[in-house]
Amino acid sequence: MKLSRRDFFGAAGVGAAGVVALGAGGIASSRAAAPADQGTTTASGAVEFHGAHQAGITTPAQDRLHFVAFDVITDDRAALVRMLQQWTQAARRMTRGQDAGPVGAVAGGDYAPPDDTGEAMGLPPAGLTLTIGFGPTLFTAADGTDRFGIADRRPDALVPLPAFPGDELVPAISDGDLCIQACADDPQVAVHAVRNLARIGQGLVGVRWSQLGFGRTSSTTSDQATPRNLFGFKDGTDNLKAEQTATLDRFVWVDDPGSWMHGGSYLVSRRIRMLVEVWDRQGLRDQEQTIGRTKGTGAPLGQQAEFDPVDLSALPATSHVSLAHPTNAGTAILRRGYSFVDGSDGLGRLDAGLFFLCYQADPATGFVQVQRNLRTDKLNEYVQHTSSALFACPPGLAGEDDWWGSGLFG
Amino acid sequence: MKLSRRDFFGAAGVGAAGVVALGAGGIASSRAAAPADQGTTTASGAVEFHGAHQAGITTPAQDRLHFVAFDVITDDRAALVRMLQQWTQAARRMTRGQDAGPVGAVAGGDYAPPDDTGEAMGLPPAGLTLTIGFGPTLFTAADGTDRFGIADRRPDALVPLPAFPGDELVPAISDGDLCIQACADDPQVAVHAVRNLARIGQGLVGVRWSQLGFGRTSSTTSDQATPRNLFGFKDGTDNLKAEQTATLDRFVWVDDPGSWMHGGSYLVSRRIRMLVEVWDRQGLRDQEQTIGRTKGTGAPLGQQAEFDPVDLSALPATSHVSLAHPTNAGTAILRRGYSFVDGSDGLGRLDAGLFFLCYQADPATGFVQVQRNLRTDKLNEYVQHTSSALFACPPGLAGEDDWWGSGLFG
Ligand code: HEM
Ligand code: HEM
Repeated sequence: MKLSRRDFFGAAGVGAAGVVALGAGGIASSRAAAPADQGTTTASGAVEFHGAHQAGITTPAQDRLHFVAFDVITDDRAALVRMLQQWTQAARRMTRGQDAGPVGAVAGGDYAPPDDTGEAMGLPPAGLTLTIGFGPTLFTAADGTDRFGIADRRPDALVPLPAFPGDELVPAISDGDLCIQACADDPQVAVHAVRNLARIGQGLVGVRWSQLGFGRTSSTTSDQATPRNLFGFKDGTDNLKAEQTATLDRFVWVDDPGSWMHGGSYLVSRRIRMLVEVWDRQGLRDQEQTIGRTKGTGAPLGQQAEFDPVDLSALPATSHVSLAHPTNAGTAILRRGYSFVDGSDGLGRLDAGLFFLCYQADPATGFVQVQRNLRTDKLNEYVQHTSSALFACPPGLAGEDDWWGSGLFG
Repeated sequence: MKLSRRDFFGAAGVGAAGVVALGAGGIASSRAAAPADQGTTTASGAVEFHGAHQAGITTPAQDRLHFVAFDVITDDRAALVRMLQQWTQAARRMTRGQDAGPVGAVAGGDYAPPDDTGEAMGLPPAGLTLTIGFGPTLFTAADGTDRFGIADRRPDALVPLPAFPGDELVPAISDGDLCIQACADDPQVAVHAVRNLARIGQGLVGVRWSQLGFGRTSSTTSDQATPRNLFGFKDGTDNLKAEQTATLDRFVWVDDPGSWMHGGSYLVSRRIRMLVEVWDRQGLRDQEQTIGRTKGTGAPLGQQAEFDPVDLSALPATSHVSLAHPTNAGTAILRRGYSFVDGSDGLGRLDAGLFFLCYQADPATGFVQVQRNLRTDKLNEYVQHTSSALFACPPGLAGEDDWWGSGLFG
C-alpha cells in the first residue's frame, strides 16, 4: 500500500491499522498551495520552483536563511544522481508547502521511519525557496581524483577564490561539494527543508557546515523598507533589483548557450564577523564616513534621501560605498546576505556579523573584483572574513521531470 | 545640549550641526508605542514592562529568542548597581519600541558614539520582553569571594543544579552571573536589545555565552496552534497557561513575603542537543511510543484530539509524557523553550535541538524533580544536555523609578 506523507499522518480511518489504533487524526492544516510564476509569490506564500533561473536569487529576499554546505561522502555517481533526483522531488514538494516525502516508500507502515520529519506540518509555504549550487571540489576532489567523471565539465569560472589580505578563513566552515540556500519567512520552514534534504542524503552526503541568518540585505524589492545590518545601517539600498532585467542579464546570469550553466549564476558566500563592540565605540560621524551614507535615513553623504544617487565627490575615497560603487569597482553584483549571531566568541563578545551572499555571472569580474577594490576600505577595521565558499548554481528547471544536475550529469 | 536618540538620528534641522551637514533626515517610522498591562501586548505590539511579575515568563511566548549569560568582570558594587539601573532604563525604553539611549549623553554631538546601535530603527516593539536573572556566582564567586557583599542574600533555592546521569555539559556555555532572556517576534529586535545591554555594560560585564532560538514551545496560549519541535511533535500542549493563576501561584511564583524574590521565579536553562539523524531513522510507531503522543494530531496515545486528557494507562511507562506528567512527576513547571540550529557538529550532522527553558517557584521541586523522574525516559536515547544554568529572576518592577536588582541591592 502506498500513501503520501499527508495521508499517512493525516487522514483518520485510513487503512493503516497501526496509525488508527494510535489515534492519529487530521492535521491542523494542509501545507499545499498553488504556485505561480518562478520567483513570484502567491497569496498562500508559495514561490514557483520551476523557470529559466532558479528561485532564491532574484526572488525578493525572505526574512530568514538556512544555508548548508555538504560534503559528498560516496564515490558512486549513480547514487549521487539518484539522490539529486530525490532532492529535486522533495524540494518541489516542500516549496509548494507540502511535506518532503513523495508518494510511496511507506511500505513498512507505521513501523517505517516517516518520510517527512514532521516539524513543518501545519505551516504555510512561507515563501520557501531552495537553491542548489555545486562547489569546485565536486568536479575534482581535494586529492585530485575525478570521482564522478565530471572533471572536464567544470566551468573555467569555477576555481577557488584567491586569498585576500586580512582573510581569517576557517577551513572547517568553508567550501563544500554542494550547497543548499534555503530562504523562507519562517525559520522552521527553512530548517525543515534543509533537514529533510540531509535526511534523504543520509550515507551519501554529510553536513560540512551550516549557517542560520535573519534580517536580510534588501534585495530586489523597491517596495519594502530597507532592513538594517548589525552596524545599524540600511543594507541593500543600492542593490540590483529584480526588475532591472538587462543589468541582471549582464552581471548576474551566465550567458553561455550550450553550456550546462547557461542561465545559472555563481554564488559566493563569506561569513563576515562584525566587531560590533569596536564599532559601537566609534562616533556617529566616523561611522557615517566609514560607510559613506548617513545612519538615520540611509542617504548617501551629501544627499537628502535614501534613494538619491550617490555623489562620489561627497564621500571619503576610502568609504565602503565609494569603493564598492559600480563607478569605482567597475562591476556590479547581486547581494543577498543575512545577519547572524552565533553565540559568544569566548572573549566576552557576541560572535555576530553578516553572512554575505552574492550572485554574479563570473566570480572573477564579480565578487573578486569588488573585494579587491575594497582593499583600502575603512570598514576593514571592523570586520573579519571567517568563511568563504564558491558554488556554481545551475539554471532553473524546465518542468516536473527535470532535476537538479540534469545538465551537468545528464 | 541633550537629545534623545530618536531626536539625534531623527529630526532634520535639529541644532546638531554635524548631523544636518551629513544629511540626516527623518527615520522611516517611530518605534514608540503605548504599553498596556504587564505581560499583555498592545495592538502596536508592546508588552508592558512593569507589574507584579517580570514580563517574559507567562507572556505568550514570542516567536524568537536571544538568550545571553554574562560574567560580571568588575568587583565594584556601585558600578554594577549603576549598570543595572542603566540597563533597566534601556530595557524600559526598548520594550516600548524606543531606542536604548535615555535622553542625554550625547554631549559630544556627532563625534560621540551613538547611544543606540541603530539596527532596530524603524522596527515596531515586536512584543519584546526582557527578563533578568541572577546566577549563584553573582552572590559568591567561583573562588568563594563575596565580591558585592550579597553572599548572605542568596536564597537557599539558588544552589547549582545537581548532576544528572547522561549530562554532557560544556562549562564554557553553562552558568553565568547574570542572564537576559530577550523574546520578540522579530529576531532583529531581540538581538538589538541584548546587543545594547552588552554595549551599556562594556567594561563591567562580558558575554559568557548566548543562544538564539526560534519555533517556541507553546506556552500560556490556548488560542494558537501548538508549534512543533525538531522531532516533529507538537510541543507545549500540556504546558501551564497564563490563565491558570492559582496553579502558577503554586508552582511558578516564589511566595516568600519579605524576601527580595517574592513574586519572582527561578529559571532553569538546558541546551539539549537532539540527535535528529538518529530520530529520523526510527519508525513512526516507535517515535510515538517514545513521546507518548501521536505525531499528526498531538493527541495523547489512546485518545482522539490534542487537548484530550492524558490517559496514563494507554502510554508506555517509559514514554516522555508519562514520566513528565504531573501525576507521575508530582509537580509542574512552566516550559518556555525554543528550537535552535547552531551549524554542524563537525561529524556531518546538524548541531540542532531544544534550548529548554522552564520557570518554577523552587528548582528542587521543579526542574530537578521532573528531570530525576525522566531517568528512564526513552527520549534520553535521542538527546544530550550540553549546557545548564540556573538563575533567580526577581519580581517585576513597581514603576518608573524601580530598577532591576532594587530588592537585592537596594
Ligand atoms: C560586514 C560587511 C559589510 C557591511 C556591514 C556592508 C554594509 C554595506 C552598506 C551599509 C551599504 C550601503 C547600502 C547599500 O547600498 O546597500 C553597502 C553597499 C554595498 N556593499 Fe557592502 N557591506 C559589507 C560587505 C561587503 C562586501 C564583502 C562586498 C563585496 C565584496 C560589498 C559590496 C557592496 C556593494 C556593491 C554595495 C553597493 C554600493 C553602491 O552601489 O553604492 N559589501 N554595504
Ligand atoms: C529535547 C528534549 C525534549 C523534547 C523533544 C520534549 C518534547 C516534549 C513533547 C513533544 C511533549 C508533549 C506535548 C506537550 O505537552 O508539551 C512534552 C511534554 C512535557 N515535557 Fe518535554 N521534551 C523535552 C525535554 C523535557 C525536559 C528536559 C523536561 C523537564 C525536565 C520536560 C518536561 C515536560 C513536561 C512537564 C511535559 C508535559 C507532560 C504532561 O503534562 O503531559 N521535557 N515534551
